[in-house]
Amino acid sequence: MIGIVLVSHSKKITDGLKELIEQMAGDGSNLVVKSNGGTDEGELGSNPMELLSTLEAMTDCEEIYVFAGVGSAKMAVETALDMLDDAEHVHDFSDYPLVESAFTAGITASTGASYEQIKAELQQFN
Amino acid sequence: MIGIVLVSHSKKITDGLKELIEQMAGDGSNLVVKSNGGTDEGELGSNPMELLSTLEAMTDCEEIYVFAGVGSAKMAVETALDMLDDAEHVHDFSDYPLVESAFTAGITASTGASYEQIKAELQQFN
Repeated sequence: MIGIVLVSHSKKITDGLKELIEQMAGDGSNLVVKSNGGTDEGELGSNPMELLSTLEAMTDCEEIYVFAGVGSAKMAVETALDMLDDAEHVHDFSDYPLVESAFTAGITASTGASYEQIKAELQQFN
Repeated sequence: MIGIVLVSHSKKITDGLKELIEQMAGDGSNLVVKSNGGTDEGELGSNPMELLSTLEAMTDCEEIYVFAGVGSAKMAVETALDMLDDAEHVHDFSDYPLVESAFTAGITASTGASYEQIKAELQQFN
């Protein structure tokens, strides 16, 4: 299983992007997409601890790709990754354009592509 | 008044991004943000005719900046702009990263920046 984690100040943005990726990746794909937008009170803002819990719970994912929106959403990713015990299989793409790169990674991952192939595909956004 | 128009297959994404920009741009700003995501039935997809209506109705905006997400959202922008009678003050940034560039344009525009200043600020994403 491949994991894609979407981080933004806005839960609407990450929920919408999750729907978009899941619709394009299709049923029966080897992909799980997690929406980690907003604070735990549902407000605009970031929540590194919820992100950490999400990452820790994704034990069935061989590789996890993390994408983030503007501003401190990127800092939330850094904080969570610093606190994560086993982060070797977690790849931080929070400097990449959120919608475009997560969408591309999702479609590419759903075809069974390797980490190297996905990373190469994402270089167009770097 | 400056207009920012957000286009995506997903209404959740454009609604969330509108909220994010409005929160950061603050009250009393000279900025209006329009969310044009999804189809007119509320499904995932694009809707060039609704976008055209939105642009035509923004008669109080001296400059309008259009941002779009992946895939045919960009084509919806092209279609709407081709059909728009007076498109000289409408600036197409649909090739730019949706969240990051619209957010940056919104913050920059809310300070009273000119088209040239906003365009220059957005070059970091080109």
